[in-house]
Order: sequence, then C-alpha cells, then structure tokens
Amino acid sequence: MRDNNDVLIHEVGTRDGLQSIQTIFSTEGKMEWIRREAAAGVPQIQVGSFVPPKLLPQLADTAEVVRQSIAIPGLTVAALVPNLRGAENAMAAGVHQVGVVMSVSEAHNQANVRRSVQESLDEFEKIVAYRDAHPEYKDTVISGGMATAFGCTISGTVPVSDVMRIAEGLLARGADRLGVADTVGYANPRQVRDLFRELYETVGKDVPIGAHFHDTRGLGLANVSAALDAGIREFDSSLAGLGGCPYAPGASGNIVTEDLVFMLEAMGLVTGVDLDGLLEARAIMERQLNGEPVHGTYVMAGVPKGFVAASAA
Amino acid sequence: MRDNNDVLIHEVGTRDGLQSIQTIFSTEGKMEWIRREAAAGVPQIQVGSFVPPKLLPQLADTAEVVRQSIAIPGLTVAALVPNLRGAENAMAAGVHQVGVVMSVSEAHNQANVRRSVQESLDEFEKIVAYRDAHPEYKDTVISGGMATAFGCTISGTVPVSDVMRIAEGLLARGADRLGVADTVGYANPRQVRDLFRELYETVGKDVPIGAHFHDTRGLGLANVSAALDAGIREFDSSLAGLGGCPYAPGASGNIVTEDLVFMLEAMGLVTGVDLDGLLEARAIMERQLNGEPVHGTYVMAGVPKGFVAASAA
Repeated sequence: MRDNNDVLIHEVGTRDGLQSIQTIFSTEGKMEWIRREAAAGVPQIQVGSFVPPKLLPQLADTAEVVRQSIAIPGLTVAALVPNLRGAENAMAAGVHQVGVVMSVSEAHNQANVRRSVQESLDEFEKIVAYRDAHPEYKDTVISGGMATAFGCTISGTVPVSDVMRIAEGLLARGADRLGVADTVGYANPRQVRDLFRELYETVGKDVPIGAHFHDTRGLGLANVSAALDAGIREFDSSLAGLGGCPYAPGASGNIVTEDLVFMLEAMGLVTGVDLDGLLEARAIMERQLNGEPVHGTYVMAGVPKGFVAASAA
Repeated sequence: MRDNNDVLIHEVGTRDGLQSIQTIFSTEGKMEWIRREAAAGVPQIQVGSFVPPKLLPQLADTAEVVRQSIAIPGLTVAALVPNLRGAENAMAAGVHQVGVVMSVSEAHNQANVRRSVQESLDEFEKIVAYRDAHPEYKDTVISGGMATAFGCTISGTVPVSDVMRIAEGLLARGADRLGVADTVGYANPRQVRDLFRELYETVGKDVPIGAHFHDTRGLGLANVSAALDAGIREFDSSLAGLGGCPYAPGASGNIVTEDLVFMLEAMGLVTGVDLDGLLEARAIMERQLNGEPVHGTYVMAGVPKGFVAASAA
C-alpha cells in the first residue's frame, strides 16, 4: 500500500490485447510497438504468454519477443505462464517477471485451465520452487494473479473471503507480488475500494499489489481512481484498449493505457510516461491491425488547455 | 452535502443533447422520449431551453414541451434560460426548475453570452426578484449553474477561488441550488473531490449542489465517483450520451445516463431508475436520430451475472 505519487504502468496489450484479436502481428511488428512504448517511458510490458503455439498462434513467438525485449534498457519484461512448463520456458528466455494467473471463481478456473483452485495453487508452488532451485533465476519476480476477483460470468458474485484466502495462499507459497483482476468488467468503485482495503489489512501493507481492470461497463477508470484511494499504485492497461471484450461484442476490454496515463498525470501522479510517445506507439500498433476496433478518448480529445503532466512538472 | 444512499438523476439529453446535434426532433418525438424516461423512474428532466428559436431551432418548441411534460405525474420539469426574458417565459410555461448558467471563466462567459460574470450575476438577481414578485411562481426553484468550473478551452486553468466567489454570489442573490459543470471535459477525480469539498466548506453543507460532467476524456464516471465521495448526490447526464463534444469530434459529451445509473446502483446507491426502462427510452430516442452517433457501454454489456440493483433490493 502506497500513498506516494509514483504509479507503475504495466502494458498488457502485447499479450491480453493480441490474444483477443484476429490479426497476427509479426515479431518485428511487435518489437516496433514494444520499443516505441518503452521509449515513451512505460516501465513494464507483458510481451506475451508461454502457452502452446497451437492454442494462441498470435503469441507463438513469445520467447523470441522476450529475448529481444530484455535488450531494451530499463524495461521490465513480463510474460504470463499457465503452468510449470511455461514458467521454465519463460525463465529460460530471460523474463524478468513471470505472471501466473488463477481464477478466484472455482467454476471459472475449471473452465479456463481445467484445474481446481487448489491444483492451481499447487502448481504455483512448483513454479516458485523451480525458480528457487535455479540461482540464475533468483531475480525473477513471480506474480500471483487472481482473475474474476470482482465477479464471474459463470458464478456471478465472488465472495471477498475467497480472494483473501487465495491471496494468503499465494503469498504462503512465495509470491513476490499479487495481481487482482476484474477479468470480466464487473467491478464498481465502492467494491474496488472495499476489496483493496481489506486485502491490505489481510496481507499487510508492504505486499506489492497490482490491479487489472476492464472497461466493459465504462467503469475502468473510476475503478482505478477507487483503487488509488485504497493505496494501489500499479495498473495493467492496454494501448488503444486493444483486445475488446469477448463476452460483449463492441465493448471495451482492458482499460486504455493512454487514457489511464492522462488521468493519473492530471491527478498529479507521476507515471514517467510521455503521452505524445504513447500516441506514436498507438499509431505503430494501429497500422498493423486489419481494421479491428480500437478504443480510447485521449486520442480524440488531447490534453486540456494549460495542462501540465505531473511527470513533466 | 449528503452521505445518504439516494442519488438524483437529472436527464439533460433533451436539452444539452438535442442542441448539439443536427437532427431536429418533433415535439411528439421528444414527448415520447420524455414520457418513457419518466416512466423508467428518472425524477428530473431538463426538457429544453428558452432561447430565441432562431439560435436553437431544435429547442424552438420548448414551451410546448414544458406544458406537456408538467402533466406527467411526479416528474420535475426543468429548463435552461439565458436571461430574464427566458425566465419569464419558462415560468409562464410552468417549469418547476429554472436553470441559469454562467461561466466561471470570464473569457468563456463573454464568448458564450456576451456578458461579464458580474453582469450575469446581476441578471440572475433580476430573475430571482421576478420569481419573488409573482406569488404564483413561489415554488419555482432557481438553480445557479457555473460552467467551466474545472477549466476552460479559452482560459485554460480556472481558479478554484473564482468558483467559490461566484457560488457565494449566486447564493447571496437567492439561488435555491448550485450546479457545477465540467463543460469541456477537463476535470479529473482529484480535482473534483477537492473542489466539492471546498465548496461545501464555503457555502455550507446544506446547500443542494448538482454536478454536470462530460466524458470527453473518459473520466466522466470517475469524476462522479469522486464527487460522491465529497457528498454530491445530484448528477446531470444524457441518455446514450447524446450530443457528443463540439470541441472534440467523435468524443463523448455528457456522461451517459444508463451507464451512470448502472454504476450508482452497482455501488448500492438508490436512483429509483429502472435500467430496462432506460434502454427502452434509448431505443425510442435513437429511432429518431438520423444516424448521429450515440455512446455508452451498458447498452452493449448489460448487467453482471447475479446483479441486483440497489433500487430493486
């Protein structure tokens, strides 16, 4: 829990966005996007997912993207993994942060990865043990992500106590940080503030916690604002909101990176990200899309007259 | 300032929306929309503006719309007026709430109504005096609206002290309530919370204050959430976000009524508005548009599984 003014932006469009669209980006096209966005000051990028290529052909080149991305100075390179095998491959490729995500909702976890939550926690433990058994990976951060933490398209309401139990389970098994995701865009600001406050009370205020919001019902940035109130200072987002929502055609998916950065900087919070640079990265990304939808308001409206970004002040 | 759970929705699409688009609605078309939205539980509708017909032909039938709307049981009928002449016409037509708006920004007020802020305050005083001199209008509420309270496309930053000074000026001249508007979509949640907290400290916590946000930069609902924290319980919004933003083509204008109601109800706040009914009103309105853009996420995404509106609980 932090009350300082520094906020960390974690770009996930290169994973969450790309896996949700039809267009398959070339490795060079991804790298052009990643390099431009890193140059704009985005400190962390989730560049792919170590899943079998036949499941997600869009991300089949993740190992190569990781190898090229870790050469970018100052960039923290993250990737998702579904299991120990994926984690081994991620670490071998040189990933700085390995993200392991399970659903808080038992039904959603079964549908998504065909495992019980307990089995996912067991697998998480193996991943940490693997990292700890290999001194060359001692600096690799392992993030424990909790999907459907604010509600589930299968189960509906998800008890807050389940979030707390799994958070404690992840930390007991060695998670370096926690990620809390509103996977299906169900969260509202009151719920967000209450949940994060309870989470900090449960796990302690020193555990790094990131938030992952979707804008499916237009509440993404309102939820960010509520999470800020509770002390959250790390947010996932997707450039141009790339990806959309598979459950609601036409609706937004991840919150939009450039809109998020604008809001934070307008509020006096320091992201270190340059908004003009983000729009250049957006243009690079958009050129590669086969007309698939993009989102965002900042790209249309620009900054208010007299605006000074907190990072530039 | 209120910490209770009741929130008042003030629909402005029938004025702010209609005056910003090309399509001219028929009186019967407007009434079909207004009747359906009132039936959905929307308690207050700003049905038009008493300006010269040649300035805004879309609103030329405002007096007739008012006369038909005041026959709808339970509905508070509001209209904007630019000056005393407009107020006289509004009261003669039977409006329950007369809205008088001036810009906090001197340059914006000059550009918009060709008056200094002081001259607008003088005109406001005449409107209150006119109401007070006519016993038949004793129940007519006069609202003092402050446009560009969070920033101005001409002047840029607007000093908070100017908002406070004009708020006190309006109340000293007999305003029954205050409206505070982010006319050009410049506000951010931190600014909103700070301004409304200071405003309640300045004018006292018992003055009814409404907030009017635009979603031009995607922060409309985040700003609502921040305003709720400060005690605001009255919000302007536009069905389907009708109207857009004249300064940013393609961008949103007013916050979207149905998205606002969804957020509030999800947060446990009671609007008394039925979301299904709002979508029916939206469909009635949209049928009359000549393909002009509409906005909103709720219409695409619907409610989360297991959702229970606070008003239905």
